[in-house]
Amino acid sequence: MLVGMHPHQDGPLARLRRGHEDLVLDLLRKHGPLSRAELGQHSGLSRTTLSDIVAGLIETGAVVATAPGAAPRRRGRPVEALTLNPSAGQAIGIDFARRAVHVSAVNVAHEVIGSASEPHDPGLPWEERIALAERLVGTLADGALRLDALNAIGVGVVGPVEDAAAEPGSGPGTGPARPCRSADLPALLRKRFDAPVLLDNNTRLAALAEATWGAAAGGQDVLYLRLSHGVGGGLVVAGALHRGAYGLSGEFGHIAVESGDGRCSCGATGCLETVASVGAVLAAYRRAGGHADGLAALLGALEAGDPVALRTLEAAGTHIGTVLAAVCNAVGPGVIVLGGELAAAGPPLFEPVERALRAHIMPISRDRVDLRPAALGETGGALGGIALVLRESPLLSQYPARPG
Amino acid sequence: MLVGMHPHQDGPLARLRRGHEDLVLDLLRKHGPLSRAELGQHSGLSRTTLSDIVAGLIETGAVVATAPGAAPRRRGRPVEALTLNPSAGQAIGIDFARRAVHVSAVNVAHEVIGSASEPHDPGLPWEERIALAERLVGTLADGALRLDALNAIGVGVVGPVEDAAAEPGSGPGTGPARPCRSADLPALLRKRFDAPVLLDNNTRLAALAEATWGAAAGGQDVLYLRLSHGVGGGLVVAGALHRGAYGLSGEFGHIAVESGDGRCSCGATGCLETVASVGAVLAAYRRAGGHADGLAALLGALEAGDPVALRTLEAAGTHIGTVLAAVCNAVGPGVIVLGGELAAAGPPLFEPVERALRAHIMPISRDRVDLRPAALGETGGALGGIALVLRESPLLSQYPARPG
Repeated sequence: MLVGMHPHQDGPLARLRRGHEDLVLDLLRKHGPLSRAELGQHSGLSRTTLSDIVAGLIETGAVVATAPGAAPRRRGRPVEALTLNPSAGQAIGIDFARRAVHVSAVNVAHEVIGSASEPHDPGLPWEERIALAERLVGTLADGALRLDALNAIGVGVVGPVEDAAAEPGSGPGTGPARPCRSADLPALLRKRFDAPVLLDNNTRLAALAEATWGAAAGGQDVLYLRLSHGVGGGLVVAGALHRGAYGLSGEFGHIAVESGDGRCSCGATGCLETVASVGAVLAAYRRAGGHADGLAALLGALEAGDPVALRTLEAAGTHIGTVLAAVCNAVGPGVIVLGGELAAAGPPLFEPVERALRAHIMPISRDRVDLRPAALGETGGALGGIALVLRESPLLSQYPARPG
Repeated sequence: MLVGMHPHQDGPLARLRRGHEDLVLDLLRKHGPLSRAELGQHSGLSRTTLSDIVAGLIETGAVVATAPGAAPRRRGRPVEALTLNPSAGQAIGIDFARRAVHVSAVNVAHEVIGSASEPHDPGLPWEERIALAERLVGTLADGALRLDALNAIGVGVVGPVEDAAAEPGSGPGTGPARPCRSADLPALLRKRFDAPVLLDNNTRLAALAEATWGAAAGGQDVLYLRLSHGVGGGLVVAGALHRGAYGLSGEFGHIAVESGDGRCSCGATGCLETVASVGAVLAAYRRAGGHADGLAALLGALEAGDPVALRTLEAAGTHIGTVLAAVCNAVGPGVIVLGGELAAAGPPLFEPVERALRAHIMPISRDRVDLRPAALGETGGALGGIALVLRESPLLSQYPARPG
């Protein structure tokens, strides 16, 4: 446990008390601010025990009690909220995307301190990417972030990752599927930042971020689809990031679409990615006689009501909605979040997506799933790295506290 | 906690010790027999603490230590396994299917005591179905099952169920989607058996059973597809039964298939169920000129090499494999289990399923997912009810022990 606590004796009673303290701290880390009643429900501890444990944690400064801020309350006086002490520990997230590094920082009270991004050449060597990340994190620090108090780093990378706590380079995910991975990335980062590292796929992390702070905040079952130069996504299942047996879940871009015959980068044909990526939509627009040198021009044409552009998005949206309906029938999410550059097309994309979704989802589910645009933009992957640390970090409790 | 334990004092040390005992008992309930080393890993307790706790549990008879049975060991002397005392508590599962009641019983050491089934008219009133279940459970008892020591009942029903611990009749799953549900089924069962009741969809429970005792035993990420008069399924995700936001997950039968135009019972068109249910396959066989008055005749024709029958299964299997590939890309299971009456067709079904699966799954996942026939047959739903009790029952720890 990292945050400051009693100097425990090592007798059995002290050990068991520490177990309860860990439980309370863990719940506050996972859920953010909680009332005493909520803490009681989640922990299963009696009121007396909980009161005793919380008093001790407040005394040591690990936990602070605050009246809730601007949140509207239904009735009665404001309820006191318990939260981890914001100065007691912090986490950063880094997203090593194909052509950019994104970083974000959040304190353990779940407050976002800041985010920063910088594009780079896709061929930039890993050492330089890491140096770039360090520089960006430095711009966030600026008085607000104490790098010596980092609890952990959550890191997003391109390609499949099997186990957030595992080192890459082991397991079936290694090799051609990890084109943008430095085998010793976690080790390099640990060395630079002197903190444990958790690693996951950056699109999955964006899904977790949307379910934590974004368009589906608080959602327990969330489907996130990212329409960018590639098409991918992630699932949050019962409140946890879903990985699948081999770290290959959320590959919605490689679900086959009806009458799809385009060759996909994955080696298969007819994948959603071949009709719904930014490049595929631009190519379809040009084939239909439209002129656009890039996505911005296509978005402009949509804005201007260009019928060719609208039909192009209609076709892509129909494929997307059909695939989403299939995934919904399989996993039953409560919220679907659409992100990536193409989502900026707005209603000309969302409307055909929603129509196809409603046409192919089980009728009983039709009014139970919400389709929403992503809220976090390009820093979603980095924020998701932080969400991973706050929710899952097995390392947090294994690493000894460093002097703060 | 139900099984016998020390008569605890209520001081803080005793309360905390009880917490550790509960943890150990819970791990043995969830995992079945474990070695001391495995218990240490799962519980996170120190060797000294664990040794102390286990000694106490063995002394009270809650836990027994056994040398493992016939399981082959790689090397060295057999490792002692700790298990819940088989006589300390038992669970039954009941599957109220559309036209039959299935029951199974397992003791808390995860040993199947027995199973029984009886078909009935689909219109049989609920009171009579419950009486039938009681009678079937009685045939199992026969000296081996102590009904007065039942810890809980896991119950499978047709249609969506949102929360295993919730009473039906509340929430959006109520109404036309629950055609075979008695609103007070859990209450009726509790009254008959004097034990807590957990409820879930019976096809999802069959998925959990296959992942616990069946074709995917021990699997953490399992996709189960049932090809019967309807087509449905279930997902086990990271070792837990997946429910989805509204209890509507695993509806693989209602994923649209390419060029599907058949009207489905769910109200949509083109669902997998319209081409892959037993009835749909029989109808397709007849349309192609085949003669079969039922599934048995069709299976006979396949056995005899009837090319029309083979082509019919080839077409259905291709649709099934394509849908499975879509779900695999989304959720990344390690094992796919095919069950239901149609799965009895064997290779004429499994081969086209596998071909379409491999053609449409991401190439990187091709050799990572195993397709297997279901192993548990028609009692899978009832066994899954028991698996639910053993894995998830929040009631087990809430109900006081009854004198055994």
